[in-house]
Amino acid sequence: MRLLIDMDGVIADFEGEFLRQWKLNHPQKEFIPLEDRRGFYVREQYPEKYTEFVQEIYHSPGFYQNLPPIPGALDALKEIRNSLNNVFLCTSPMLPKYENCVLEKYHWVFDNLGDDWVNNIILTKDKTIVRGDVLIDDMPEVKGSMTPEWDHVIFDQPYNRNIKDRKRLTWSNWKEILEIV
Amino acid sequence: MRLLIDMDGVIADFEGEFLRQWKLNHPQKEFIPLEDRRGFYVREQYPEKYTEFVQEIYHSPGFYQNLPPIPGALDALKEIRNSLNNVFLCTSPMLPKYENCVLEKYHWVFDNLGDDWVNNIILTKDKTIVRGDVLIDDMPEVKGSMTPEWDHVIFDQPYNRNIKDRKRLTWSNWKEILEIV
Repeated sequence: MRLLIDMDGVIADFEGEFLRQWKLNHPQKEFIPLEDRRGFYVREQYPEKYTEFVQEIYHSPGFYQNLPPIPGALDALKEIRNSLNNVFLCTSPMLPKYENCVLEKYHWVFDNLGDDWVNNIILTKDKTIVRGDVLIDDMPEVKGSMTPEWDHVIFDQPYNRNIKDRKRLTWSNWKEILEIV
Repeated sequence: MRLLIDMDGVIADFEGEFLRQWKLNHPQKEFIPLEDRRGFYVREQYPEKYTEFVQEIYHSPGFYQNLPPIPGALDALKEIRNSLNNVFLCTSPMLPKYENCVLEKYHWVFDNLGDDWVNNIILTKDKTIVRGDVLIDDMPEVKGSMTPEWDHVIFDQPYNRNIKDRKRLTWSNWKEILEIV
């Protein structure tokens, strides 16, 4: 099996870190608890008057590099790597403001998984152009220029629970889910 | 047709800029004229005692971002884009020293081609995992984890003229070559 794994929201805790920094930087403003997040883009759920403050957090230098791993992800990746030859990290840069995230995604992989995994990063906005059997991604609908070759296994997050028709993976149940794909 | 185009040595003049900086920084040392370049890696053709000096040039901040375009490449890309919907820049980062080149490749595309093309960058060490009909690449043998889906059209360079069995493209003959692929 050839496995593609997304980064933000799957192995790197974008939402958790965003919320932590939001509370820290804007203690007087309302916040959306993780369990109440709806819709893929955090920016779109916060009131419009806060858009710039929201973006400022994840556009800041260091945000991507310092994202904490999602609990269980690093151990799972190591285990997956031991049994599968072909595991790639398939991730999209934040566009058009790619300045920090592009390099910091590489740093994150280096820091958290080691240089061997850096070889297996695929950075692309369009994931449908990548060959694979399974893509694990938290995005509800992964679209691009082609009909994808891979099956989309959704990584369970509060903001994608409206999607009912796909297998749903967490770092606790990944063995069962990947075996039945 | 779905077209993948490499960057260094195809649209960005890695070799020309390397030689320019080599002569500038090491005027007393011998140099290899472009027409005499053999083998894909410039580092391997220079005497071993110079390896560190050679690497220092292309590992320096700004090297990748400031590569001059290969003559004819930018006009050709614009023309290709007008007739093909699916054109991607498919490029490998310098590994393991990815620090400068990863972000600078994005900057190069932004500076030379505009933000629209930034959306179509695919950064991957393994190009065989990318779907496409044709890959234009100056590397003599493009290998990876799979049998590629694409045909490799070689971008003509002095260091790959030992390869005789493939179509050979330049930014002067690309229309004929791509039509007969």
